[in-house]
Amino acid sequence: MFEHIISSVKEKTPLIHCITNYVTVNDVANVLLACGGSPIMADDVQEAEEMTSICNGLVINIGTLNARTISSMLLAGKKANALGNIVVLDPVGAGATKLRTQTTLRLLEEIKFSVIRGNISEIKTICQGSGTTKGVDADSNDAVTEENTEQVISLAKALSSKTGAVVAITGAIDIVADSQKAYIIRNGHSMMSKITGTGCMLTAMIAAYCAANKCSVLQATAAAVAAMGYCGELAYEQMKKANGGTSSLRMHLIDAISQLDDTALIGGCKIECEK
Amino acid sequence: MFEHIISSVKEKTPLIHCITNYVTVNDVANVLLACGGSPIMADDVQEAEEMTSICNGLVINIGTLNARTISSMLLAGKKANALGNIVVLDPVGAGATKLRTQTTLRLLEEIKFSVIRGNISEIKTICQGSGTTKGVDADSNDAVTEENTEQVISLAKALSSKTGAVVAITGAIDIVADSQKAYIIRNGHSMMSKITGTGCMLTAMIAAYCAANKCSVLQATAAAVAAMGYCGELAYEQMKKANGGTSSLRMHLIDAISQLDDTALIGGCKIECEK
Amino acid sequence: MFEHIISSVKEKTPLIHCITNYVTVNDVANVLLACGGSPIMADDVQEAEEMTSICNGLVINIGTLNARTISSMLLAGKKANALGNIVVLDPVGAGATKLRTQTTLRLLEEIKFSVIRGNISEIKTICQGSGTTKGVDADSNDAVTEENTEQVISLAKALSSKTGAVVAITGAIDIVADSQKAYIIRNGHSMMSKITGTGCMLTAMIAAYCAANKCSVLQATAAAVAAMGYCGELAYEQMKKANGGTSSLRMHLIDAISQLDDTALIGGCKIECEK
Repeated sequence: MFEHIISSVKEKTPLIHCITNYVTVNDVANVLLACGGSPIMADDVQEAEEMTSICNGLVINIGTLNARTISSMLLAGKKANALGNIVVLDPVGAGATKLRTQTTLRLLEEIKFSVIRGNISEIKTICQGSGTTKGVDADSNDAVTEENTEQVISLAKALSSKTGAVVAITGAIDIVADSQKAYIIRNGHSMMSKITGTGCMLTAMIAAYCAANKCSVLQATAAAVAAMGYCGELAYEQMKKANGGTSSLRMHLIDAISQLDDTALIGGCKIECEK
Repeated sequence: MFEHIISSVKEKTPLIHCITNYVTVNDVANVLLACGGSPIMADDVQEAEEMTSICNGLVINIGTLNARTISSMLLAGKKANALGNIVVLDPVGAGATKLRTQTTLRLLEEIKFSVIRGNISEIKTICQGSGTTKGVDADSNDAVTEENTEQVISLAKALSSKTGAVVAITGAIDIVADSQKAYIIRNGHSMMSKITGTGCMLTAMIAAYCAANKCSVLQATAAAVAAMGYCGELAYEQMKKANGGTSSLRMHLIDAISQLDDTALIGGCKIECEK
Repeated sequence: MFEHIISSVKEKTPLIHCITNYVTVNDVANVLLACGGSPIMADDVQEAEEMTSICNGLVINIGTLNARTISSMLLAGKKANALGNIVVLDPVGAGATKLRTQTTLRLLEEIKFSVIRGNISEIKTICQGSGTTKGVDADSNDAVTEENTEQVISLAKALSSKTGAVVAITGAIDIVADSQKAYIIRNGHSMMSKITGTGCMLTAMIAAYCAANKCSVLQATAAAVAAMGYCGELAYEQMKKANGGTSSLRMHLIDAISQLDDTALIGGCKIECEK
């Protein structure tokens, strides 16, 4: 199912406009370049729309939102919708504060997203209109396990029905679903949670993968999720070999993303299609 | 004295709210994760207080301050005080501009800090109400040496008496003191000054160490200072072995922090208690 | 021609005030330290002028500009002019949006720059007063090749005549020129375009090199351009040796910059003086 996803990214070099947080923005830019895309960051209201109009995709990540950048997110999102461009939402910390929850809900009201990627707590917040996210990490009571996979799939499908977006719920087990179909992905390594930005980087990769594969957004999103997880496994192996720690893991992760091709992903992905 | 400091951080995973500069924020987040804590960055006035209220500690770092974030610092700091949470100040560049000096003094007036960490020029600026900091680095005329250690300890104790905060003055020799007692720490490597962010990262580590060891803030601060220095030594060795440069040093530093445990720190720290 | 350029930077440790984008700011700070300078970032209107007045050089990089920081750029730039300090412009994405083009033109009107560094699309935008930059990367139709080197040199000289600044047009082939003389530099590796920030880092290095070699701004700029390219070649070799990817390349690049001295640069640079 992933035959030409990555090669399409490398051929088309989709330009991705990111309105994103300043914590992980450098990793996001480097991952976009590593996977074959091209990043551009512009968060001012005076240029957000115009910048989006020369791009192939838009990432809206609320990780360090403020009044100024929220306006830019809304303007850019509407412009991207008008142009039929890919728009991906990363509702970082939705549920942790009223500002994040309300901004997320407002973005969903005013913008049609192609993909929404979050952890289970963030997605639950969106579904319920309120939440109890522990900072930017998923609440441990919410963790996706083999036992509750069914329920999480239902949640993802329900949100997809409501919004029209492909929904990616990432954690130890990842779920990627539209209203009809769901993929369960078991790639990744627990140590990835010890570096900041794997979620933000994945969101940006999803935008690049989808912008280069616009006719198969569900598959492209699943491919990006599997790619990030598989590269995390490869990075963990490299890190262990060199007796490294978390900063080595981060380097090897981006290295692996820059070296990944379709064949390697097809060989390494652990994906199952829910019936 | 450091028996369970690090293991406490790893057990409790303190959530640290950072209002910090955008230069080193990614390293700060990665170091918090590496040492066993969990970072959350939120600098908007609309959510600063609320975010602090779900956290265990707060870092206020003025490295790239502006009117908007200063308001957030004040709101978050007061909220953290009301909740009895750990609050750590990093007065980056205090003395370099009026804005930095005055903001630092105002923060100290309105917020009760658990710990203040700065270089000698920044701390002198606070004590004197004005200063001559050379950018964000300590003025070389101010350097802490074996000859003036006594005076620096007096300065740290005086500031601790005045503010109630543990004071950490870091440089070639580090001093950590409350009003009664001082530790002299001789870990570290001079090449650490050739990478940006070691101070900011240390400030965040202090917040995590203290939030997980609230009953022994002086010891926890000293432990964090020794840990950063010792990890710098280990990183330097790794860097040399691979003929690397400053970016390798940065990676090995965060790697070492992620690999450090109580036993290793007790074995590696060079700490002396002033009588 | 590069006899003491780097050693001067290491002796004088020029303090460089950077008003720059938040995407690559950490790399910019680390590269300034690596090459022997010292970075300070301050972008608020309340301290921009004052901070510049204690520095030896100023970098204005419009990569994530906004109304607040544009004011700071103007204030700091004028102050640096009044003090006779080095001021370097990086017009990131000029041509991509009206805000970037107009801000660039306004900065050039109100500030006298020592050096302007951009890719060919950005420089063309400045010369024409409008442009078609593809995001932050040069338009492929604009690429500098062996065939159009002459025209690019004419463009650089013309802009230098108009502005009084040394002009550096960087890409596969780099051109550094004042109104009279041009250098053609053939260092670098194509894979450097797969990491973010090489342009921003180079701009900051130019500021440090020029601030430490104020009497030979043309040579210092050429040296910085050659140094970045040569370090990119060395980094590529290191990366290949370890089967690494783009994140390794970034680390080895900064490592190489921190290890470079005058002798190594003179041995490695591929520079030609146009007659």
